[in-house]
Amino acid sequence: MGMNKITSAIKENSTFLISTHKSPDGDALGSSFALGLALKKMGKNVFYALEKPGGGKYSFLNELNELNGSYGDRSFDVGIFLDSSDPDHLYDASLMERCRIRINIDHHVSNNGYCHLNYVDVNASATGEAVYELLENLNVELDEEIALALYTAIVSDTGNFKYSNVTYKTHDIASKLYRYPNRYWEISRKLFDETTFEKVQLIGYALGRISLIKEGKAAVIHLSHEDLKKFSDDADMEGVINYARDIKGVEVAVMIKETSRDTFKVSFRANTDFDVSKIAVHYGGGGHSKAAGCTIRDMRFEDVLEDIKSHIVF
Amino acid sequence: MGMNKITSAIKENSTFLISTHKSPDGDALGSSFALGLALKKMGKNVFYALEKPGGGKYSFLNELNELNGSYGDRSFDVGIFLDSSDPDHLYDASLMERCRIRINIDHHVSNNGYCHLNYVDVNASATGEAVYELLENLNVELDEEIALALYTAIVSDTGNFKYSNVTYKTHDIASKLYRYPNRYWEISRKLFDETTFEKVQLIGYALGRISLIKEGKAAVIHLSHEDLKKFSDDADMEGVINYARDIKGVEVAVMIKETSRDTFKVSFRANTDFDVSKIAVHYGGGGHSKAAGCTIRDMRFEDVLEDIKSHIVF
Repeated sequence: MGMNKITSAIKENSTFLISTHKSPDGDALGSSFALGLALKKMGKNVFYALEKPGGGKYSFLNELNELNGSYGDRSFDVGIFLDSSDPDHLYDASLMERCRIRINIDHHVSNNGYCHLNYVDVNASATGEAVYELLENLNVELDEEIALALYTAIVSDTGNFKYSNVTYKTHDIASKLYRYPNRYWEISRKLFDETTFEKVQLIGYALGRISLIKEGKAAVIHLSHEDLKKFSDDADMEGVINYARDIKGVEVAVMIKETSRDTFKVSFRANTDFDVSKIAVHYGGGGHSKAAGCTIRDMRFEDVLEDIKSHIVF
Repeated sequence: MGMNKITSAIKENSTFLISTHKSPDGDALGSSFALGLALKKMGKNVFYALEKPGGGKYSFLNELNELNGSYGDRSFDVGIFLDSSDPDHLYDASLMERCRIRINIDHHVSNNGYCHLNYVDVNASATGEAVYELLENLNVELDEEIALALYTAIVSDTGNFKYSNVTYKTHDIASKLYRYPNRYWEISRKLFDETTFEKVQLIGYALGRISLIKEGKAAVIHLSHEDLKKFSDDADMEGVINYARDIKGVEVAVMIKETSRDTFKVSFRANTDFDVSKIAVHYGGGGHSKAAGCTIRDMRFEDVLEDIKSHIVF
C-alpha cells in the first residue's frame, strides 16, 4: 500500500504541491483541501494547483481562497496528486517534474500508478476516504474545517451515501466527522438539492417531452433544436435523464438532444444488466454498461428515435 | 430512561403485541419489524398489529407477510407501541387494554409517555435508532433481515442521512448495519428515487406552472382545477413543492391546488427563519414554521395568489 513510505515522505519534507484532476468535483476539492489543511497544521508549506470551480457551489470551502497560483516557477519537495487515475487527467501534468517526490492518492480501479509512491484504495468510496486513512496514519487531529472538506468529498462521490460504493467504513468515517460541529445537512442540501429557476423550468419542459416505449421498459426524453433554443446554451442538463431512468419498470433511459439541426447528442442509462454502451458504440460513442453516450449526425428529428429504438432489444 | 425495566419485561415474558401509528412510514415499519424479528430470535411469540402500506414500496420487508391479524381476541403479556407519540395516533388504541405491560419506544419530542414503560430518545433520528439501542441492551445479535429493517427505519426518517436530525450515532449504527450484507443502495433507490410515469408527468406539468415572486424570494406552483383534472384523483403530489423550495434564493415556497371549483389546498415551505405557519393560521390552517398548510374557500383562481402574496412580507 505504500502508506508508511508516504507518511515518512510527508513528515521528512517541508514544501508541498497539492493537485488533482481537471474540472474538479467535490471529491477532488474536498480531498485536496482536507490534506492541505492537515499539512498546514503540521507546519508544512502548502501550494495548491487546481482549477477554481464555477458557480459558487463549493463556496463553503474556505481553502478555495488559497488558489492564487502563487507557486510561480518554484519547485517542491513533494507533489501529492489526488483523485486522478492518470497524469493525462491532471490539472497540469507538467507540474509533476517540479516535485522531487511524487505521491498519488486515489480510489479509481483504473489507476496506473504514475507516481513514485501510490496509495490507491479501490474499496474506498471516495479519495476522501483514502485521505482520512492517511491523516489517521499521520496522527493529525481533525478539526471542523478538515471534517467539512472530507464530508464534501465523501458525499459527492456516494450521492450522499446512496451508491453501491458505500461500505461500513464510509459510515464509520462519517460518524467520526460528525464529532466536529458543522451544519452537514446544509452542505448536503447545497450539493444535492439546491437548483436554479432555469433548471426547474428545464426539467419541467423536458418532462413534457418524455414517453414510454418498449412496453414501459424504456423511457425517452426527446428535445428538438427548437425546444433547446428556449434555454441558454450552457443550460445545466445534468441529472435530467434520471427522471426517465427512475420510472418504475424502466430498464433503459434515453435522452436525445438536437444540439444543432440534424445533429443529436444522445445519452443512455441502464438500471439492469442491459448494456447501453453497445448502443452508444454502434453510433461511434462509448461509455459503461450503465451510462453511455454518442453523437448522431445527419439524421432527421423524426427518424432518430426510430433508429435508436431498433437497437434497444430486450 | 426505563431501559433496564424494558429489557427485564421483555426477557421475563413470552407473548408480545407490536404496534405502531396509522399509515405507517418506513420508520414505523422498519422499527416494528426489527424488534419483532429480534423477539422471535429470542423465542418469543410475536403478533403484529399494523396497517399494510399500499403500493408495494416496502415489499422488500418480508415481515409484511406476517400481518395476518391472527391475534383475534387474545391478550398479551407485553404490548410494544413504536414511533407513536400519542395513543390517538395508534393503529388501534383499544389493543392497549389487552396488554398487561405496555411499552412505548419513540423519538418524538411531543411524546406524552402513555405507557407503563416509556423509552423516548428525542436525540434519535428515528425510532429505529432507539430500537437498535434496545437490541444491544437485549444482547440480540443482528442479522441481514434485522439490519435491513433498521436501515429502512433510519433512512426513511433522515432523508437518506440528509436531515438535521442525523448525528454521529446515526452513522455509527449505519456502519454496524453494513456489516450484514444487504443491497442497501437498492433500498435507498427504491425509497427515494423510484417514481412512476404519472408522477414524472405530474412534476413536469407542475413545473410548467411555477413562477417566482417577491424578487425571487418566493416561488409559487399554481394549479387550477382544469390542470388537476388531467391527473388521477389520488395523484401523488408528495415532494412536488420541494422543486419550488430548492430554487437558489427562494425563502418561501407555495403550492396552490384548486381541488374543486373555488376551493384551494395550499402548502407552504420555508428555507429560512420565515415562519410560514403564520400565513396558514391566518387562513384557518396550521403547521410548523418550516412546513404548513391551509384550505381557502370561496375565492376565485385569479384572486387567491394575490391574496396569499399580501401575507408574504419579507
